[in-house]
Amino acid sequence: MNSGQILLSHGSGGKRSNELIKGLFLRYFGNEILNAGGDSALLAMNGDNLAFTTDSFVVDPLFFPGGDIGKLAICGTVNDLAVSGATPEFLSAGFIIEEGLDFQILEKIVKSMADTAIQANIKIVTGDTKVVNRGKCDKIFINTSGIGKLRPHLRKISSGEGIQPGDKILINGFIADHGIAVMSARNDFKVFAKVESDCAPLNDLVNGALQVSENIKFMRDATRGGVATVLAEITTNKKFGIEITEEQIPVRESVRGMCEFFGFDPLYVANEGKIVFIVAEIDASQILLNLQKNEYGKNAAIIGTVVSEHPGTVVLQTKIGGKRIVDMLSGDQLPRIC
Amino acid sequence: MNSGQILLSHGSGGKRSNELIKGLFLRYFGNEILNAGGDSALLAMNGDNLAFTTDSFVVDPLFFPGGDIGKLAICGTVNDLAVSGATPEFLSAGFIIEEGLDFQILEKIVKSMADTAIQANIKIVTGDTKVVNRGKCDKIFINTSGIGKLRPHLRKISSGEGIQPGDKILINGFIADHGIAVMSARNDFKVFAKVESDCAPLNDLVNGALQVSENIKFMRDATRGGVATVLAEITTNKKFGIEITEEQIPVRESVRGMCEFFGFDPLYVANEGKIVFIVAEIDASQILLNLQKNEYGKNAAIIGTVVSEHPGTVVLQTKIGGKRIVDMLSGDQLPRIC
Repeated sequence: MNSGQILLSHGSGGKRSNELIKGLFLRYFGNEILNAGGDSALLAMNGDNLAFTTDSFVVDPLFFPGGDIGKLAICGTVNDLAVSGATPEFLSAGFIIEEGLDFQILEKIVKSMADTAIQANIKIVTGDTKVVNRGKCDKIFINTSGIGKLRPHLRKISSGEGIQPGDKILINGFIADHGIAVMSARNDFKVFAKVESDCAPLNDLVNGALQVSENIKFMRDATRGGVATVLAEITTNKKFGIEITEEQIPVRESVRGMCEFFGFDPLYVANEGKIVFIVAEIDASQILLNLQKNEYGKNAAIIGTVVSEHPGTVVLQTKIGGKRIVDMLSGDQLPRIC
Repeated sequence: MNSGQILLSHGSGGKRSNELIKGLFLRYFGNEILNAGGDSALLAMNGDNLAFTTDSFVVDPLFFPGGDIGKLAICGTVNDLAVSGATPEFLSAGFIIEEGLDFQILEKIVKSMADTAIQANIKIVTGDTKVVNRGKCDKIFINTSGIGKLRPHLRKISSGEGIQPGDKILINGFIADHGIAVMSARNDFKVFAKVESDCAPLNDLVNGALQVSENIKFMRDATRGGVATVLAEITTNKKFGIEITEEQIPVRESVRGMCEFFGFDPLYVANEGKIVFIVAEIDASQILLNLQKNEYGKNAAIIGTVVSEHPGTVVLQTKIGGKRIVDMLSGDQLPRIC
């Protein structure tokens, strides 16, 4: 960690990102709150329980089917708060803009943020704008940080403390749409069917699920690194393993086709509107039905089970009957996806 | 606002920044909290009073006499919370890094952030890292957002509501050091005496002042746009005017020399460790003495008075006996100063 250079893969959300966080950021900044490593920091202020999170957005291109950098910047932070068990309330917006950016583009992005903020029922309450010389950034980067009210009984949901064999793995719909939509927009692949990003604020979906069950043990949005990285992370060094079944994982035919063509595994492709839930078996069907009632959960599915076999490891049952280990993303397949 | 392009001056903290905020961001994001326009958003969550703020840092070069982008990123957000009447507690750190940045540079910056965090008595509790391709950003940009506990009786200090004629204007030391230090580092002006940035966390200084007086009516850190812009902003559309006396404003001889040489007015040059206080006359000397006891206030001075004449306008009494109007910064004299 003391020599060498930063690579694109240090920002991929996979293995190298993990190394950078542990080897550098935690080493210098470490404290009990940061070390917990959830999607949000969980704070107690005057006895109040808050969640606090931050995310920078550098997606290229700025506009893609189903979304844009502005919508992404709101949804990403809203979803990080929601999966931490908090009700998102207040967001900040920090803009770094390249000199020469058209006002019309900026206005379109700002309008998209405002529309998404209304949809997600949050307020943008503070902001900052910096402008850098031409060629010193790529059009616009946006940081959003967010504060939410934490449900006190969910303080440990990000650590997945209560997970045990028999629990079910759920996902709220088709995976890999976002990564493929952005890649298509970037490369202008008109030959393929148009795939739209799944970018969406999921606080309402999470809220619904939490209302029907007290047995949700873990939630995380499967962004950079995809579903595979979320599952690999939550299983690492644990006394349980996870088994997922390829046939049960919702992937659109068009997305599967593009993944095959380009050599991507949809399990590793970024989502911006998908959450991995781990829930007690007894409540799994009820939660599934509840997710399916939400506009962002229509294609929700149970995709796997927590097992006592192969502790620390995620195993995929393939369609053709084989098994393979699912590890964290190493390297970077799609830089600047969010 | 509907056509044209973003200019460097839109990020200067002066007139054009103001136009962008009012014409675009407030138009789309507007709500009672954001519209208040203080250095931090003031939130009530479960009856708790919080301040919340965000800032992105794009300073060039990354290292300069007296500081670096990491120290700046902590101090900037700590100071925004402090002048809002809050005790800074928790910060987020969002990194946007250019592919190829040396680990050693990153580590030096991270260490500087960690050291400053300890000094300022705050915790970095959540973070994010994005990496963009070579040439798509300039080495590293950092966003910090912060949360502080708001002293309830100071909810209105950012608006300067209680300001009235007779009140005194204080500054906690030499102005324009930061801007000149960064510019010198950028241009490698070895011919001049070395000027160090005043970059410092001022929460302790503010805390001390608030303990000796209940008559502090306004505080703001004079960053981009300098002392002039802070005074012009707080006076605009008000029933009072402000008069400041050039002779009383602390400016180092070396800084004055460089300003003269390059045609800058020190009143408009950025500071990163200076706060403008407006206080009741009766407490002014006591507050001044208190500031002077703090390591970041040794050269504090009373620099002016709130007056009933020329309402809405700041007037400078020059050394040679003349008077001139002090307006907000228009255009941009030093881009990427923070």
